[in-house]
Amino acid sequence: MSSLRPPQQHEEIAEFIRQEIFTGRYAPGDPLPSEAELCQQFDSSRGPVRQAMSTLRAEGLISSGRGRRSIVLENIPTESFDSVFSVTAWLRALGKEPGQNTLWIARQPASAEVAEALEIAPEEQTVAVHRVRTADGEPIMVERMHFPAEIGRHLLDFDADNGSIHRHLLRMGVDFNNVSRTLIAIPASAEDAESLKVDEGYPLLRLTMRCYTHSGQPVELADYRYRCDKIQLGMNSVRGASSPLWVDIPDSD
Amino acid sequence: MSSLRPPQQHEEIAEFIRQEIFTGRYAPGDPLPSEAELCQQFDSSRGPVRQAMSTLRAEGLISSGRGRRSIVLENIPTESFDSVFSVTAWLRALGKEPGQNTLWIARQPASAEVAEALEIAPEEQTVAVHRVRTADGEPIMVERMHFPAEIGRHLLDFDADNGSIHRHLLRMGVDFNNVSRTLIAIPASAEDAESLKVDEGYPLLRLTMRCYTHSGQPVELADYRYRCDKIQLGMNSVRGASSPLWVDIPDSD
Repeated sequence: MSSLRPPQQHEEIAEFIRQEIFTGRYAPGDPLPSEAELCQQFDSSRGPVRQAMSTLRAEGLISSGRGRRSIVLENIPTESFDSVFSVTAWLRALGKEPGQNTLWIARQPASAEVAEALEIAPEEQTVAVHRVRTADGEPIMVERMHFPAEIGRHLLDFDADNGSIHRHLLRMGVDFNNVSRTLIAIPASAEDAESLKVDEGYPLLRLTMRCYTHSGQPVELADYRYRCDKIQLGMNSVRGASSPLWVDIPDSD
Repeated sequence: MSSLRPPQQHEEIAEFIRQEIFTGRYAPGDPLPSEAELCQQFDSSRGPVRQAMSTLRAEGLISSGRGRRSIVLENIPTESFDSVFSVTAWLRALGKEPGQNTLWIARQPASAEVAEALEIAPEEQTVAVHRVRTADGEPIMVERMHFPAEIGRHLLDFDADNGSIHRHLLRMGVDFNNVSRTLIAIPASAEDAESLKVDEGYPLLRLTMRCYTHSGQPVELADYRYRCDKIQLGMNSVRGASSPLWVDIPDSD
């Protein structure tokens, strides 16, 4: 966690158990200790232990208890907020060698779609980045990122082939606080097809990501297109735990 | 919540604020009251108020606080565990008239893929359901569900055009405790194309859902294919909140 405050006890307990799951101390199917045993283990009252369990349930790592012992469900790490922005970190965690090929970084006027997402006037200046990401040398996704000019200017002399764009922007003080992502299937354009070495029209998973500051100001619109034979997204859900998934019906044209 | 125990205070607080967001009492961009004010409003100590905020953050509805007031981010309802199984409830919440056309319900031997997912022997008997779901009369998705025979037998005399399959199975005592979903883009097969009124090869979003009991026993494999021009899935993430999303790289053939 890249937090400025010390972790609270429930966060420390959740992180300890999370690491025990990811390192194999508990395998899928194994029961966790009881609430009373965990209180003793962490010298904690019930509140923090319960909150830690609720965190792990929201990540889909353990089953709902309902008076029974929670069971470990999954040991595939789920994303942290910081890893939302780091394809590199994802790939390393999966044992793949990440690579990236920046096709261009450019100042350009906002298209209607970009202007709407960034809440700026159409034709206002933005900075756009277009990269191809690779795993073990194979292209797996293309990304197109759009930033308002006052944020994107930090990228104009940045080597996007050899560093994390988002880490750089965080260092420059950009407040990435929350994101909303939409998933659809689309056919590969001629440009996508060439970048990803697939035929034009090949079905790609498109993830559109809108990033906002704490107060809701847009800081980025990104468009990621995945080859689903190379990389897959998934999601866990556990009875009684919160889920951030929504469904919407787009307006008809 | 379909729980057997009374709600805890943090759940009541979260549900109260959630409804205030969905009904428009707080709009996106509005700050919530401070922690101290919420404690007073709900006659609560800090613990339950903090846990309620953490729940709403995991649903992507409010920004991370970090000493500042949390801001409302979204007012599109996110799924509950029960709504994972109810396309009907989703569509009603979006103001659409849900419909379904059951193509068939059949006992059939498990394919290799189904057998692996349900952890049964290949060729063992299963029950499969194949339906087309509509919104305002337009086809939006096809679903293919596969159940082990001892669960699916409850469906053989069930009218799947006029009732919820999952509600029926829950009533029959099936323990749907957790699910894992995978999302990929695929081309429409000839059969999908006919059901969804699109061309063969049209890119569809395929959501594969594996459902398990509390102890990890598989109870269902489902395959949903969406027309992304008709229905879209999305996901919120907030700094510091748990996320159930994972990324994986499939084994190469």
